Amino acid sequence: MDTHFAFLFKFTFINKKRMSQIFRTHLEKFIKINDEDFEKIFSFFEVKVFAKKVNLLEEGQICKHNYFVLNGLLRKFFINEKGTEQITEFAIETWWMTDNISYEHKVPSEFHIQTVEKSEILVISSDAQEKLLEEFPVMERYFRFVYQRAYAANQMRVKYIFSLSKEDFYFNLLKKQPAFVQRVPQYLIASFLGFTPEYLSEIRKRIVS
Amino acid sequence: MDTHFAFLFKFTFINKKRMSQIFRTHLEKFIKINDEDFEKIFSFFEVKVFAKKVNLLEEGQICKHNYFVLNGLLRKFFINEKGTEQITEFAIETWWMTDNISYEHKVPSEFHIQTVEKSEILVISSDAQEKLLEEFPVMERYFRFVYQRAYAANQMRVKYIFSLSKEDFYFNLLKKQPAFVQRVPQYLIASFLGFTPEYLSEIRKRIVS
Repeated sequence: MDTHFAFLFKFTFINKKRMSQIFRTHLEKFIKINDEDFEKIFSFFEVKVFAKKVNLLEEGQICKHNYFVLNGLLRKFFINEKGTEQITEFAIETWWMTDNISYEHKVPSEFHIQTVEKSEILVISSDAQEKLLEEFPVMERYFRFVYQRAYAANQMRVKYIFSLSKEDFYFNLLKKQPAFVQRVPQYLIASFLGFTPEYLSEIRKRIVS
Repeated sequence: MDTHFAFLFKFTFINKKRMSQIFRTHLEKFIKINDEDFEKIFSFFEVKVFAKKVNLLEEGQICKHNYFVLNGLLRKFFINEKGTEQITEFAIETWWMTDNISYEHKVPSEFHIQTVEKSEILVISSDAQEKLLEEFPVMERYFRFVYQRAYAANQMRVKYIFSLSKEDFYFNLLKKQPAFVQRVPQYLIASFLGFTPEYLSEIRKRIVS
């Protein structure tokens, strides 16, 4: 093994170790797990690195994968009647993303999923996830918590949609997720909030002045 | 035991049997379960009958219960800035309802939960649910499915909120849940869709004409 190759090997190894650790830390928020079981559980997943703006799912396809963000950012959107992309969800580090209806019922998706930044993603197929849940029923508890919290967050989102003005919707996001608002391009924040980029720009100007 | 009492006893017994069967059928959509385990699982719940318009949860209280509708109808709402009730969810037969954030994190709720009709409800406390999940880990799988589907339905709801006009939102509901629209008082449908009752009445007149 020459030095260059040894370096690369070591780098890849450390990187994989670090990424598996991110997932393990997340699992251990909800379940107890030993080293041996974790290794087996982790083997059901693939670690993939995607460049910026790569489509992981397109409208009309059956969504065959569930994505866990190790590093990076995903967005989910649909194309509305005006031909505009309307973002319905983002996923940052340790968040899951899939089209749950398409993934569970194997029907064509009404959504797109795309990387916003270069992203390191833990990927599992629906078949592999079924096997994982059969072999490690403790993962039912983990996913029960994941979906329970995602559902709870969505309940609050519906409340905000009905109760906040467009402007307050933005201020609420800014207050609760300042780092997120800083990180994501403004035209994507606008799409998530259902604004035009021009309207968001106006609001931001008003804050400054 | 006189005849009247014997009749009442028999009636109550049959009714309880019928109600436990509704729950068992729902469980068996997702998990396998034998008679003995089902009896033990069912013992974690209480069957309660509530009259129409009874508050099960009020804003500011900690939501300590999770509700499964055996028969009847629940609604969840918050009071908006104008002092109007905005409904965010309904639960009909075999649907679960709670305020998940308050229920999981034991924080004051921002919602109200109320019966719309006289309702037979399976009630479990958060403490009992934790014990149930410890003793019967197979119930993790059941609740994983419950939350996964609730979350998936909510994802579509957010899509509809962003993509459908107010009018199409009503038509969509009418097409997908005609029996539901027929059953629920129109002012509650209006509140769920974010309309005034007058606006909904206008749309309905337009359909007839």
